[in-house]
Amino acid sequence: MGIVSGMEHEHTHRPSAKKDAHLRRLRRVEGQVRGLQRMVDEDAYCIDVLTQVSAATKALQAFALELLEEHMAGCVVDAARQGDEAAAAKVREAADAIARLVKS
Amino acid sequence: MGIVSGMEHEHTHRPSAKKDAHLRRLRRVEGQVRGLQRMVDEDAYCIDVLTQVSAATKALQAFALELLEEHMAGCVVDAARQGDEAAAAKVREAADAIARLVKS
Amino acid sequence: MGIVSGMEHEHTHRPSAKKDAHLRRLRRVEGQVRGLQRMVDEDAYCIDVLTQVSAATKALQAFALELLEEHMAGCVVDAARQGDEAAAAKVREAADAIARLVKS
Amino acid sequence: MGIVSGMEHEHTHRPSAKKDAHLRRLRRVEGQVRGLQRMVDEDAYCIDVLTQVSAATKALQAFALELLEEHMAGCVVDAARQGDEAAAAKVREAADAIARLVKS
Repeated sequence: MGIVSGMEHEHTHRPSAKKDAHLRRLRRVEGQVRGLQRMVDEDAYCIDVLTQVSAATKALQAFALELLEEHMAGCVVDAARQGDEAAAAKVREAADAIARLVKS
Repeated sequence: MGIVSGMEHEHTHRPSAKKDAHLRRLRRVEGQVRGLQRMVDEDAYCIDVLTQVSAATKALQAFALELLEEHMAGCVVDAARQGDEAAAAKVREAADAIARLVKS
Repeated sequence: MGIVSGMEHEHTHRPSAKKDAHLRRLRRVEGQVRGLQRMVDEDAYCIDVLTQVSAATKALQAFALELLEEHMAGCVVDAARQGDEAAAAKVREAADAIARLVKS
Repeated sequence: MGIVSGMEHEHTHRPSAKKDAHLRRLRRVEGQVRGLQRMVDEDAYCIDVLTQVSAATKALQAFALELLEEHMAGCVVDAARQGDEAAAAKVREAADAIARLVKS
């Protein structure tokens, strides 16, 4: 009550306005991954499996890019208005996440 | 009986020796994607969600790379021994799949 | 004097504090690309050429990620402090650049 | 004369039929990287620099994919016809190069 841990405070962020859209998208990816299991189980042709893997990877990436934009529009912009230190921390954190995405 | 459709013939390929390993790997990816749904549902911090997306994407890519190596060691090598035309077709097909992977 | 064109205004941005480091890095990439030309010219082994291509690509990506972080710490943070509209425009623009990077 | 080192032998490969096209392509990439240096030197807008980086990265990747296809059509197919051991070695080597590409 009234007590907010450092972590909690640091991580305060607006819940996504697009939560439902995100969940729908992720359920579709789950369906794609289950489709992959079926293909492997039924000895589908490797190239067809690879095409489906590319589709699932692309879908995950599209989700990540949308989430990232929301994060910048929300948390990063908020932090920028809180002060230089908060801004620097959020920018650094976002940059690290982008680097992980680019390399994955 | 004795009748093999063009498609079927073209797609003749050895079932994967690593089928079980592939299925285990894909079930793990499915678990990661379900974990993502839970995170979004519980308003987890965006950066944590993004980290998990990168992990799932990396896992899918590792699966694709393994599948591709198996495909080259099996279908492409077999085609190379069948003749120039078969070899050229399989190489072209593999190259297209690699391009899709690199771009996804 | 006092007259700033729309474009100019929109693109006002602090010159990079790391300009020299950026230039050094890019000169190294130029050297790698010239090395690639030499390799191709001397019929170097394809796999060795591919390894060198991966190195050059990685160097370009590392440069892009650094530039992007600087851009967020500078232009995006400044825009966030100017108001909602400026913030939204810069975030959108940065998100598009990130998408191009992830896909390239 | 007549003496071929192990390495040399292992790396015997047909010189690229597309050597001129490869060199032209790489010279264009070199021009793009020099253009990047000019942009940084003249304090160009970060997003414009990033767009140009994406273009150079894409050009390098397109070159790599072409080279890889040539390599499979040449060295890998040749190795497949030499025997199982040669085939396995070349496939492994190509798979490693593809993994580096996908991750770069």
